[in-house]
Amino acid sequence: MTLAPVAADDARNFVAALFAKAGVPAADAATVARCLVEADLRGVVSHGVGRVPIYLHRIAIGLVDPVAPIAVEELAPAVARIDGANALGFLVGSRAMAEAIERAGRFGIGMALAHRSTHFGMAASYLRQAIEAGFAAFVFTNASPAMPVWGGRVPFLGTSPFAFGAPGGEHGPPVLLDMATSIVARGKIRRAAAAGQPIPPDWALDKDGQPTTDAAAAYEGIILPLGGPKGSGLSLMMEVLAGVMSGSAFGGEVGNQYSDEDRPQNVGHMFIALKPELAMDRAAYAARMDALAQRAKACPPVKEGGEILFPGEPEAKLEAQRLRDGIPLAKEDREGLVEAARTLGVPVPAWLAET
Amino acid sequence: MTLAPVAADDARNFVAALFAKAGVPAADAATVARCLVEADLRGVVSHGVGRVPIYLHRIAIGLVDPVAPIAVEELAPAVARIDGANALGFLVGSRAMAEAIERAGRFGIGMALAHRSTHFGMAASYLRQAIEAGFAAFVFTNASPAMPVWGGRVPFLGTSPFAFGAPGGEHGPPVLLDMATSIVARGKIRRAAAAGQPIPPDWALDKDGQPTTDAAAAYEGIILPLGGPKGSGLSLMMEVLAGVMSGSAFGGEVGNQYSDEDRPQNVGHMFIALKPELAMDRAAYAARMDALAQRAKACPPVKEGGEILFPGEPEAKLEAQRLRDGIPLAKEDREGLVEAARTLGVPVPAWLAET
Repeated sequence: MTLAPVAADDARNFVAALFAKAGVPAADAATVARCLVEADLRGVVSHGVGRVPIYLHRIAIGLVDPVAPIAVEELAPAVARIDGANALGFLVGSRAMAEAIERAGRFGIGMALAHRSTHFGMAASYLRQAIEAGFAAFVFTNASPAMPVWGGRVPFLGTSPFAFGAPGGEHGPPVLLDMATSIVARGKIRRAAAAGQPIPPDWALDKDGQPTTDAAAAYEGIILPLGGPKGSGLSLMMEVLAGVMSGSAFGGEVGNQYSDEDRPQNVGHMFIALKPELAMDRAAYAARMDALAQRAKACPPVKEGGEILFPGEPEAKLEAQRLRDGIPLAKEDREGLVEAARTLGVPVPAWLAET
Repeated sequence: MTLAPVAADDARNFVAALFAKAGVPAADAATVARCLVEADLRGVVSHGVGRVPIYLHRIAIGLVDPVAPIAVEELAPAVARIDGANALGFLVGSRAMAEAIERAGRFGIGMALAHRSTHFGMAASYLRQAIEAGFAAFVFTNASPAMPVWGGRVPFLGTSPFAFGAPGGEHGPPVLLDMATSIVARGKIRRAAAAGQPIPPDWALDKDGQPTTDAAAAYEGIILPLGGPKGSGLSLMMEVLAGVMSGSAFGGEVGNQYSDEDRPQNVGHMFIALKPELAMDRAAYAARMDALAQRAKACPPVKEGGEILFPGEPEAKLEAQRLRDGIPLAKEDREGLVEAARTLGVPVPAWLAET
């Protein structure tokens, strides 16, 4: 039996109701729901509503504070630090980006560090916040160990996303780059294992720390960084910017959202916002971005008839389609939502009841 | 016959004398020489003194101005723009980084855009300038087309380096990440071709834009971006930050240093400097950086007895060795220097005369 796709509004309302029931103020619950559903709309399933149960679980066991008093500290004229106080990372992230944007408006560039935060979902959510406000931005975070530092064979660095965004022109798309610093998503290794296919030798190590082309062995082991020392370097950079500099946990000590129940995660983030039209007026900036997109898209494609897309454009196309046709939620994600609703005593909506 | 390694001081003095004879003021010539020899010391041969002839040639044909009036414009309190006026990129880069650092000192974070610049050599030179001043920094540049945008099959983007640096602690190394956004250095493909070995299918396209494992065909074609859409996205980001936003050439229009003699290059750069000890005092920052390095280096290595190094550490080790033992300059690099000296009427030093 095929389950009907879910309307984004239905998903948002329901997820917001769950977080509200868990003690999160209504406006904050709406922010969390918006970010999670946005990930599903864009096909970033790993950061969508499938994670609702773990966020709620960490609230339930007291490691995420639904009413945390997020505080802003002024570190320098153009730099703020956000004390996340173990709030939901979405709230820390949105607040930090807002502070960076406000400073960029005044100084041309602004930065916000955040410490004592938690998993903030999809980095692209904060890039979009900046782009919608007319700013370019970097979003950096550290994360729990999942990838070796280059030369090592145990998890040390996060697969932390490198994220950059800039407003587009009148006709062309924005740039919205949100990429894991690992060579490949874990899901690709899982699929190869399921299909019994080998993987390239530079993707993963087995559980003994040895390189392997056996997808099943790799799935039990750890994923390698993008381009070897390059992805490792990018993730290490985020340890410095988002971890060391912010005052959060760093160097292997950020808590894993799923497995570390002895402590708050103490994730660190770093957001930079900047005004894109400093050297020219807004119209000239927009015209140059349009020219960049137009020239890139005019390049002859590798594949006959192929289309050249900007970073974030495939996700934007999927989002437009899913806003129209609904989100095809996976069975396990539906089940997680039903169970969360029952645990909290929130009515299970009709579109979920059939699960 | 093996040629003796060259002392760094000898190389610097001689290269500075060449640029001075070409009309570059003495202090500026020393800056250029320092950056070029620094690249050779660190093993970044592609950006070392082997490029002296092309820089001098572009001065000779009037496309680089040896006495360009580099100008600084205030775009916002924390942001400057440098008009390079077709100066040597080393001078534009050092000045821009100095302006970014000065603003970071006042505001916590500072930015400098640069337009009408030229090839600025190795990005790491400017990272070191920031680190020596006690700051973390990003160095971004755009570049002439050498790599396709993802999905395309003709050169459009630069293989522009992504560069980030941050001061280390009392005991550990700084982070000094300076990485091309292409999957591999062109030299690796050349070596595979010479050895008659195949290359992985994701490294390059042949001259007809088709993927190839034939190294010789790949060497005639173009190099692919790091991790496919990821390296393409990083290079495109630099087109936006260093190109679109600075007012320089962008989107395939930056001049190639070697082949475009009809116009100045009009390269764009973007430098961000930031104070690393905003959320804590300097000693606490240093202790955290030391802890990060110590923990990373304590990870069990993939290879028995292997050492885990921070980005930039292999180059720093090589630099220390070459400062002691001299730089093993390639025959073609020596010949280029001899010819440059003869063209300019600068005496060929004894250490070069044997070439």
